[in-house]
Amino acid sequence: MNKLLTALLGLSSGLLVSVLFFSDVGRQNARASTPDGELASAAQKVYVPHGKKDEYYLFSSGGHSGQLFVYGVPSMRQIRIVPVFSQDAATGYGFDDASKKMMGGYTWGDFHHPAISETAGDYDGQFLFANDVANNRIAAVDLSLFHTTDILKMPNMGGPHAAVFVTPNTEYIVAPTRFARPLGDEYAPLDKYKEKYKGVVTMIQFDRAKKKLNLAYQIVLPPWSYDLSDAGKKMSDGWVVMTTYNTEFATTNLEINASQKDRDYIVMVNWKKLEQEVAAGKANTVNGVKMIDPRDVEGAIYAIPVAKSPHGVDVTPDGTRFVASGKLAPLMTVFSFQKAFDAIAKKDFVANEFGIPVLKYESVMEREVDPPGALGPLHTQFDDRGNAFNTMFISSEVVKWKLDTGEVIDRQPVFYSPGHATAAEGDTAAPDGTYLITGNKIAKDSFLGVGPSHPESLDLFDISGDKMQHLMSVPIPPEPHYSQMVKADKIKPKLIYDKDETRPDSVWKADDARIERKGSEVHVYGVAMRSKFIFDAKAERKDSFTVNQGDRVFLHITNIDLDQDITHGLEVMDYNLNFEIQPGQTSTLSFTADKSGVFPIYCTNFCSALHQEMSGHLLVQPK
Amino acid sequence: MNKLLTALLGLSSGLLVSVLFFSDVGRQNARASTPDGELASAAQKVYVPHGKKDEYYLFSSGGHSGQLFVYGVPSMRQIRIVPVFSQDAATGYGFDDASKKMMGGYTWGDFHHPAISETAGDYDGQFLFANDVANNRIAAVDLSLFHTTDILKMPNMGGPHAAVFVTPNTEYIVAPTRFARPLGDEYAPLDKYKEKYKGVVTMIQFDRAKKKLNLAYQIVLPPWSYDLSDAGKKMSDGWVVMTTYNTEFATTNLEINASQKDRDYIVMVNWKKLEQEVAAGKANTVNGVKMIDPRDVEGAIYAIPVAKSPHGVDVTPDGTRFVASGKLAPLMTVFSFQKAFDAIAKKDFVANEFGIPVLKYESVMEREVDPPGALGPLHTQFDDRGNAFNTMFISSEVVKWKLDTGEVIDRQPVFYSPGHATAAEGDTAAPDGTYLITGNKIAKDSFLGVGPSHPESLDLFDISGDKMQHLMSVPIPPEPHYSQMVKADKIKPKLIYDKDETRPDSVWKADDARIERKGSEVHVYGVAMRSKFIFDAKAERKDSFTVNQGDRVFLHITNIDLDQDITHGLEVMDYNLNFEIQPGQTSTLSFTADKSGVFPIYCTNFCSALHQEMSGHLLVQPK
Repeated sequence: MNKLLTALLGLSSGLLVSVLFFSDVGRQNARASTPDGELASAAQKVYVPHGKKDEYYLFSSGGHSGQLFVYGVPSMRQIRIVPVFSQDAATGYGFDDASKKMMGGYTWGDFHHPAISETAGDYDGQFLFANDVANNRIAAVDLSLFHTTDILKMPNMGGPHAAVFVTPNTEYIVAPTRFARPLGDEYAPLDKYKEKYKGVVTMIQFDRAKKKLNLAYQIVLPPWSYDLSDAGKKMSDGWVVMTTYNTEFATTNLEINASQKDRDYIVMVNWKKLEQEVAAGKANTVNGVKMIDPRDVEGAIYAIPVAKSPHGVDVTPDGTRFVASGKLAPLMTVFSFQKAFDAIAKKDFVANEFGIPVLKYESVMEREVDPPGALGPLHTQFDDRGNAFNTMFISSEVVKWKLDTGEVIDRQPVFYSPGHATAAEGDTAAPDGTYLITGNKIAKDSFLGVGPSHPESLDLFDISGDKMQHLMSVPIPPEPHYSQMVKADKIKPKLIYDKDETRPDSVWKADDARIERKGSEVHVYGVAMRSKFIFDAKAERKDSFTVNQGDRVFLHITNIDLDQDITHGLEVMDYNLNFEIQPGQTSTLSFTADKSGVFPIYCTNFCSALHQEMSGHLLVQPK
Repeated sequence: MNKLLTALLGLSSGLLVSVLFFSDVGRQNARASTPDGELASAAQKVYVPHGKKDEYYLFSSGGHSGQLFVYGVPSMRQIRIVPVFSQDAATGYGFDDASKKMMGGYTWGDFHHPAISETAGDYDGQFLFANDVANNRIAAVDLSLFHTTDILKMPNMGGPHAAVFVTPNTEYIVAPTRFARPLGDEYAPLDKYKEKYKGVVTMIQFDRAKKKLNLAYQIVLPPWSYDLSDAGKKMSDGWVVMTTYNTEFATTNLEINASQKDRDYIVMVNWKKLEQEVAAGKANTVNGVKMIDPRDVEGAIYAIPVAKSPHGVDVTPDGTRFVASGKLAPLMTVFSFQKAFDAIAKKDFVANEFGIPVLKYESVMEREVDPPGALGPLHTQFDDRGNAFNTMFISSEVVKWKLDTGEVIDRQPVFYSPGHATAAEGDTAAPDGTYLITGNKIAKDSFLGVGPSHPESLDLFDISGDKMQHLMSVPIPPEPHYSQMVKADKIKPKLIYDKDETRPDSVWKADDARIERKGSEVHVYGVAMRSKFIFDAKAERKDSFTVNQGDRVFLHITNIDLDQDITHGLEVMDYNLNFEIQPGQTSTLSFTADKSGVFPIYCTNFCSALHQEMSGHLLVQPK
């Protein structure tokens, strides 16, 4: 065990906080002595008055909230929480039939890394993909409606932490697993770890017209932990790079046991080659899914040693290099794709691990960057002028350095313990170099106290000058991991759902509202409009309906107010039911009327001056 | 039907948006011509740099999200979403056994009006009470932990919209119902509305030591809709005032049918008198609850005519008056408690409605305030200098006027359609007169677009001068109704849970972690600490455990990291399970291990540099 690890373990079991608090003192003093002019300048830069709009959207993962957080930059105002993996009472997500079915019986997820769909290596703003590390799912969010449009459950996986990253034309959404598990949901004791447990990468395709995710194939790998990944672009297009940890095959106390070796690996996989092999029928079928072992395919997989227990790996905008950071080694390493290709051509291998040829570190490494005292490097972002930005979890700072020389240009404190950072248009082939945002894990004394668990936070920096300027800190719900920042004009939100008269179960005229009974099924084809519900146009009370106890009730409701922002909600009292219907949308919610009595129905989403009057009754006649 | 109503109905069925857009034009131009100096001043006023804290907490209802939103003022940064009525994946609320049981089978609520506990008419900052209009519940939030501590389900109720408001020493939490329903969950057709349907007010007491809500008694009333309420204070202490609508007894198309009469009522109830009667055994028992009819008690209830379809009613800080606003009449009415008491003494009644003596409007009314063109007055707030502030839903503005004279002092645009407003320390006997925040229903073009449904928004005003200064607009998730703004130093958050070694199921030393099996029940008494779980101190792999398929598993986990902000989370892969354990907390989560296989367990809440290594396995042996 090296000295740094010993130090870290000490920190991690209690001293960390003290050290951080100690570091604060200097930082608070620094801040206290910040010239007033700089704070005044920051205040002006983040202020977006009414009548003006933010320059960028920030799409932040919501971590174990399971949701997508949408912010405006530079005001850092949270504009929307889009429900993705978790139930959401506000929008009825997980309550209405379609979203409930899409969620597949799950009510939460652990969303780490968003990826906006790309065309020619540029964010095209159409869709955003999300991973659920906990329940092995991938979701697609439609960025015209800001709705989740599909969720795919993946078999054989152990938590797609290293997901999702898209290839430059969204050919694939790449999802490598974090924990090795026996394939096919089988049981195998941990003593059989090396033989029976596998690492898996899922390659997913997305059909933009149908808005559907499809599992293309899986790649089976040694039982290492795949932590983060990125896709090559331009000269490295066709390759995916992934960091690994626990190449020690530890099965307990990973804090110690997965930190034994001085080096773990970057795994390089050639997905274009594997795609051809799968197309040629070279894959097996495991648990209903095509699976290929890249070790059976010449030139499809290589490993590169990297400083121990790496976390992030990020490909440079021009696709020539990738930077990996070892969280237990205080340095960033720049690797060259060209050097890797040359070493592969020369078969310059130093070992073979589990059937994977291992390249020589020195042959692929271009540069090590090791700023003095900068501890816990996690992730790298880029600007448009050849600079890289690294978050330092332990020393709570961002380090700016020159990619071509390793020269450190600036270091700025972060409040506190940053994980990922996000640069404007940062994953594209042409980053903007305007703003950088860090996603911080420990807020401590930054905001008014809210009990023993503090919020997470984001720090916004202006990175347009040589020195970074800290603009503001904002709290954020648990828990931001990666995020993406995209130019506002790339997103084209729809203001109203299309009036599609052929849509199943839709009703577009109040007079067409009707109730159809099929045995114990009651189908209500109704409308919501300012300021009333109409469930049955022919009834004496059009806004109420009566069923028998035990009936299965289907509410098919269309919002016929085709005006932006006129969303209606519909609740059924004491039945634990609520869903929303956006302008022009049709939603269905079904339930069993198992309680007899009278249950007021009302609009839950303030819609007009007479919103409070928008109500009716469900009457359930006792058996 | 009067002209205004006709106009409103026209607006509400389509023209409203056009009118609002039309109004915008002027407003946007106004904003465009705002002197730069004013915007620069606003930017400085809302900017709270790192190292400084906000001056106030804003506790906003989350509407149909069911949750409590906590903001800092003046930065308007959202610091926390506290789960109250709805499941919350981020914190595991509704997943762990204790919160799941407290929620009583419901997974969402519709939270409209928070009320901070009061002592001598002042916010004491200890607890906050919340209403669920949809499922007839009241919750208490502990403001030292920012956790929901109790939820009470109320029988006989039809949606406690006019809740919650506390009496000056939190003797009672008052919850009047919005929809009349048959008592005791009975079925009765709508034709029997006047005989069988009842309005009910629930009077709840709160035990601060036990942190428990108790239903004291209920008050049965005519089947009107009780919309909002407030408690008297000082000279009016002992009284509650409530607005009513639908005194027409309409049972369908309330938009038209509940807007027929020119006047609805303010109902005044003397809770001190009713309390005595209940203590004297004068109540009946209905559905297990003590219920009293105030019409049987001399001097306990009166009605006062008020401009049609009123919404808000707010008692002045000195307790001498209350202001009610008719949403279908463009005016605010100031009523005098003293005048009401005098009229009662003189038995100056003009009618008797459903057994309730009706006072003469002119005898109780002190002043009508009718600013030209100000439409849709909803709610009134107060400052420390005798001024009142009214939100105007339709004309999208705040009107400031002098309570003693009715003189209009200032009008400022709001973006757009404000519902409630909240003044700093606004419900206390001594408001601060510093900030006012409106909760707006229609954001339209205020922020970057997020699809057909826009966020709601808050507008912050500096009200310390004669003219109000608009400082900023911020988006907010659906849906803020009322909120309260309290001085930051009144809230005393705990930083760590008490280390209570007598707490059931807690384990405080890693060596004491153990597993106890009782037939098919497996109890894991474990600890979470940086950076590992220990489930069984005696096992070879302390961070994993094995059960048989079908076993019922209880995870009792104590977080023994007694450092602020070091929260751990625990998920069980593919089992749809996640919960959090805050520093020093013990939480229990139980589930049936119905799927066999290997299920990674990991910490979901980033806790240290080796957080990623904090993991283990659940192994489920197949049957």
